[in-house]
Amino acid sequence: MEDNGAGFGRIAIVGVGLIGGSLALALKAAGAVREVVGVGRDPASLALALKHGLIDRASDLAGALVDCDLVLLATPVGQMGGIMQAMSSQLEPQTLVTDAGSTKQDVVALMRGHLSGHLVNCVPAHPIAGAELSGPLAARADLYQGKNVVLTPLAETSADAVARITRFWQLCGGLVCCMDAASHDATFAAVSHLPHVLAYALVDMIASRANRQELFGFAASGFRDFTRIAGSSPEMWRDIALANRDALLAEMDAYQARLTDLRAQLAAGDGDALMQAFVRARAAREAWQAGHPIP
Amino acid sequence: MEDNGAGFGRIAIVGVGLIGGSLALALKAAGAVREVVGVGRDPASLALALKHGLIDRASDLAGALVDCDLVLLATPVGQMGGIMQAMSSQLEPQTLVTDAGSTKQDVVALMRGHLSGHLVNCVPAHPIAGAELSGPLAARADLYQGKNVVLTPLAETSADAVARITRFWQLCGGLVCCMDAASHDATFAAVSHLPHVLAYALVDMIASRANRQELFGFAASGFRDFTRIAGSSPEMWRDIALANRDALLAEMDAYQARLTDLRAQLAAGDGDALMQAFVRARAAREAWQAGHPIP
Repeated sequence: MEDNGAGFGRIAIVGVGLIGGSLALALKAAGAVREVVGVGRDPASLALALKHGLIDRASDLAGALVDCDLVLLATPVGQMGGIMQAMSSQLEPQTLVTDAGSTKQDVVALMRGHLSGHLVNCVPAHPIAGAELSGPLAARADLYQGKNVVLTPLAETSADAVARITRFWQLCGGLVCCMDAASHDATFAAVSHLPHVLAYALVDMIASRANRQELFGFAASGFRDFTRIAGSSPEMWRDIALANRDALLAEMDAYQARLTDLRAQLAAGDGDALMQAFVRARAAREAWQAGHPIP
Repeated sequence: MEDNGAGFGRIAIVGVGLIGGSLALALKAAGAVREVVGVGRDPASLALALKHGLIDRASDLAGALVDCDLVLLATPVGQMGGIMQAMSSQLEPQTLVTDAGSTKQDVVALMRGHLSGHLVNCVPAHPIAGAELSGPLAARADLYQGKNVVLTPLAETSADAVARITRFWQLCGGLVCCMDAASHDATFAAVSHLPHVLAYALVDMIASRANRQELFGFAASGFRDFTRIAGSSPEMWRDIALANRDALLAEMDAYQARLTDLRAQLAAGDGDALMQAFVRARAAREAWQAGHPIP
């Protein structure tokens, strides 16, 4: 089975949850795929995906790779090594391999370790879309509409593979760009991985208090929005934290240093310094929301 | 002019922004006030409030206190001392005094310092409602609908004054409860003041980077919600931080300690410990959102 020009013939999605399921729905809505084969560790979840039309059939990994144009790894990053190892002897030469992991240097390293004969067709990807919900029932055809998708091709990846994977994500509504894997991981440590850890830490701290019922009883909309990302999948975020450990540790250190400065200013009653920091933050956020350059 | 039984005759609102303006709209919508007099330091803002029907007339403080049933202080906490000092010789005996400040021990201290002959009619209050917007144009009649309002009466406050201020906030849709000022400040340091400082710190840190355009360019919905409260009024939050300094410093220290633990677990590659913290946080947040007890 071959790429039909406008889209894809058979694709395999390993991990049919929010991310993989939404991709399946988007491709189907675009008429860009003939058959979607779902692979997963949880039979109940696969059955749900089949029932709701996310996939056309469920299969084991070996079966899914037969005559397959593209395989998408949409599992937590922690599972990808084992899956690639299992794939390595079964991949057909023409099959494109992409993923949807939130970290990229680790995926690149896994591809080099397990798929060294296939790197010409490997294109790591990170769609910048998600929700605090997870699982196949959370999937939505429009999840990627207008969202950034970062590709981090390897030096060995062919230009043709990059072009076809670019088209793949564009068919789902994504805005595709390329960067190197290290820059990707440093960027997302700051604007995504760190905030997730900060939100989890705050909720966990307050939930550990003896008076937690009262504390949560007075938490309001600011707390709700600040902590929304603490409702995200713990397994996925554990894997991301471990996979991007060095960059995340650096960001945690930078943040703690910033907090230590603010603490000293507060302890000294230095209202001017606090005001300047708060004014800078609000100005930056307002510029960002308005689509203007950050001052 | 006297309380007409069902509501209030003339009330004065000092600071007609989001908080004071929304109260005025709510009282008017409930038919619970005959005249709202607005007092403020910014003539343009008062003119806007008048034009949009938030207040019936603008006045200086002395004029607003004549024949007045209730005065609401809805300014940043940092301005309240000066206002109370100016009020002290002009308050008529029957006038109730309340406020909408986010901290309460400092307001109690200011009342003791400036309004010592009037404490029987002083009822500090904190409506748990707000938005990242500020100013009179952000005012909404339903801002307090179904929201908690915490009263922190002084030992000297009369039961009648508490009952009338309770009624005042109920007329605006609030769910009124009482606690002591110290408990109030400790509670809100944890669930409100700390998250605000954390959000400001993150945005300020990222906005200070040389590559801030690229970083913000890849920030997505998780970042947007986490940092929504960093769009709040810098002046208001500087004043809150300073006013509740001790409790906020204690919470910042507790949070830094929690982050330091998580950092050590991450540095050690202890995925189990990270997973447990993330699972606890998600479970607590889900219980809170569902209205269930926090596990």
